[in-house]
Amino acid sequence: MSISPESDEIKYAKGLEGVIAAISGISFIDGDQGILVYRGFSIETLAKHSNYEEIVYLLLHGELPTRPELEELTNKLKEYRTCEALMPSIRSFPKDAHPMDVVRSAVSLMGIYCPDKFDFSKEIKMQKVLRVVAKLPSIVASYDRIRKGLEPIEPDNSLNHAENFLYMLNGEKPDELSAKIMDIMFILHADHGMNASTFSAMVTISTLSDVYSSLTAGIGTLKGPLHGGANERVLKMLREIKSVDNVKPWLDEALEERRKIMGFGHRVYRAYDPRAKILKKYAKQLGEQKQGDLLFEIGEKVEEYMLEKVGAKGIQPNVDFYSGIVLNHLGIATDVFTPIFAISRSAGWGSHILEYLESNRLFRPRAIYNGPYHQEYIEIENREGE
Amino acid sequence: MSISPESDEIKYAKGLEGVIAAISGISFIDGDQGILVYRGFSIETLAKHSNYEEIVYLLLHGELPTRPELEELTNKLKEYRTCEALMPSIRSFPKDAHPMDVVRSAVSLMGIYCPDKFDFSKEIKMQKVLRVVAKLPSIVASYDRIRKGLEPIEPDNSLNHAENFLYMLNGEKPDELSAKIMDIMFILHADHGMNASTFSAMVTISTLSDVYSSLTAGIGTLKGPLHGGANERVLKMLREIKSVDNVKPWLDEALEERRKIMGFGHRVYRAYDPRAKILKKYAKQLGEQKQGDLLFEIGEKVEEYMLEKVGAKGIQPNVDFYSGIVLNHLGIATDVFTPIFAISRSAGWGSHILEYLESNRLFRPRAIYNGPYHQEYIEIENREGE
Repeated sequence: MSISPESDEIKYAKGLEGVIAAISGISFIDGDQGILVYRGFSIETLAKHSNYEEIVYLLLHGELPTRPELEELTNKLKEYRTCEALMPSIRSFPKDAHPMDVVRSAVSLMGIYCPDKFDFSKEIKMQKVLRVVAKLPSIVASYDRIRKGLEPIEPDNSLNHAENFLYMLNGEKPDELSAKIMDIMFILHADHGMNASTFSAMVTISTLSDVYSSLTAGIGTLKGPLHGGANERVLKMLREIKSVDNVKPWLDEALEERRKIMGFGHRVYRAYDPRAKILKKYAKQLGEQKQGDLLFEIGEKVEEYMLEKVGAKGIQPNVDFYSGIVLNHLGIATDVFTPIFAISRSAGWGSHILEYLESNRLFRPRAIYNGPYHQEYIEIENREGE
Repeated sequence: MSISPESDEIKYAKGLEGVIAAISGISFIDGDQGILVYRGFSIETLAKHSNYEEIVYLLLHGELPTRPELEELTNKLKEYRTCEALMPSIRSFPKDAHPMDVVRSAVSLMGIYCPDKFDFSKEIKMQKVLRVVAKLPSIVASYDRIRKGLEPIEPDNSLNHAENFLYMLNGEKPDELSAKIMDIMFILHADHGMNASTFSAMVTISTLSDVYSSLTAGIGTLKGPLHGGANERVLKMLREIKSVDNVKPWLDEALEERRKIMGFGHRVYRAYDPRAKILKKYAKQLGEQKQGDLLFEIGEKVEEYMLEKVGAKGIQPNVDFYSGIVLNHLGIATDVFTPIFAISRSAGWGSHILEYLESNRLFRPRAIYNGPYHQEYIEIENREGE
């Protein structure tokens, strides 16, 4: 018997597409309507009224915090910002490492310095999650400075999560609009249903392994270009287009050759990605504030022409199109885009693994075997090469 | 709408039990017959005739190597044994870290020092897998010595994979039987169908992330007590029983109270686990060679009495029962048992991810949302605590 993976003989959902793997009350996506809710609150409402710290509470606890509850969480996040134990490692890394490899390793190392032992108290597990949420901005910012030959900056506890990240990255306190946009970026990426990295974190926790093993797995999974790496690719495309005048000819050729245009269309959304709509507004504000950002101007033209050509078919900008433009505009290096995604999504990963542990079941699907059954062992002297 | 995860309203396979996630030609288990094959070769045949290095080749390439092919692979494994770049980190870890946290972090760090860039050459990916297979014994042995206050031992390239591991662990070349048993341990644990850690490694690679991210995820998943940690628990049980005379009363009470007896029964095997049968033979040899090993004697008595009481129901010793006894007999610390499992299984993980990449599809199952839909945002001043 030999069954090819492409065979029609065996029907199964490749990539588990459409297969139900869990029940979850954390976030909901209606792709036809262009709706995303966290715990029942629409993403538009949260972007307008909330902030990342409150979102962390909402995702983890299922409801909005009272003021004392929010203060307690905010204080904990501030307390956990420092990374003394990790700094010698981060300083010793080669300067050309991919920041996602650094982030993944740093979270794995946290499991050595402050282990999540086989203790199943939800409260203790939640502390471990908060430690990761709090330290990720410090890890990302510190490594980005160290690789540039700059000294890392100590966290400033007068600043909120987003402000402090930009401060630790740039060494100066951010202007109001930049801080607001970073907070919005963190809000918009904090959760998104059962995506691949969230699922990966759940598979790992399902053996009753620990929080760090699980989040390390999530980070490693997010790293892939089919998941977290898309906004990097938008920037690559804009750089390749090079000038506003080249937008139309470049896109005409790309569409003619049926190439994928990065940052347009989404597996889940057929309507306009609600996160893209929010980011677009801020991208415009940034554009008005700062004239002469070429990539931003190219991006605007790309959207305009794409909507004209294929917008009617439901191919619209997704969150990655605007996040790449916005982050580039904030002066952030392209390879730090996915780490920023990880900073934000850590809250979602943590919420999903804590939820899954409440009625845990080991993830162990099946594979169909299509190899041989009865091979005869031939001693090495008698084997024939090809 | 609110659907409880325990609800009968939605039918889905919890833990994806029974769901087909992939087609694979690497290993096959027939639990009713007690059969395990790697690439068509029965595990009994391989344990009798083969060795771990040949198994690595067989799993990765799908066929037994010719002598030059085996030599090439063996030489590469030897070349990759050293871990200079990792040693400063391993030396700096706290002495009470869990060795699995050390192993997971070390493999993640390998992604920093010798990255698997976004290059989809199968040959390059295979080199990265071999680096992990080769370095894991050095990592485990070095940390075990360092935490005891001993100097790590340089690898000895006159020794094979199993011999060199025991040498690096103990500082002296192993006797023939110990080396043979370690090789058998590595052979028996190298692959086992679509288990949770293998699936986890596949989920991570499916975003086109890298080999290290994927194997790091596998290690973190193996760490959990529902997966790799079972043989540690057998030892704990034998220590709790304390004396040969206490075996019957202890087991009578445990069976009466319907407690799980560690190391007996297996989700897949209803027949005798073929790996346990092989290890049992070696355990007996070790027992004859070395009299007076109390845990070993307790173990023998436990098996005898368990088979008498519940053997007819198909509850028989599994591989974890004997592997714990055997590794303890070899003088290996209990918390190094799962790392030894990881050393061996790295070849299986690597084979499965390389196979999956040949017809890759992002793993992204669905979750059913059971949370609220339309929550009204109330400003924090107006929220009521409980």
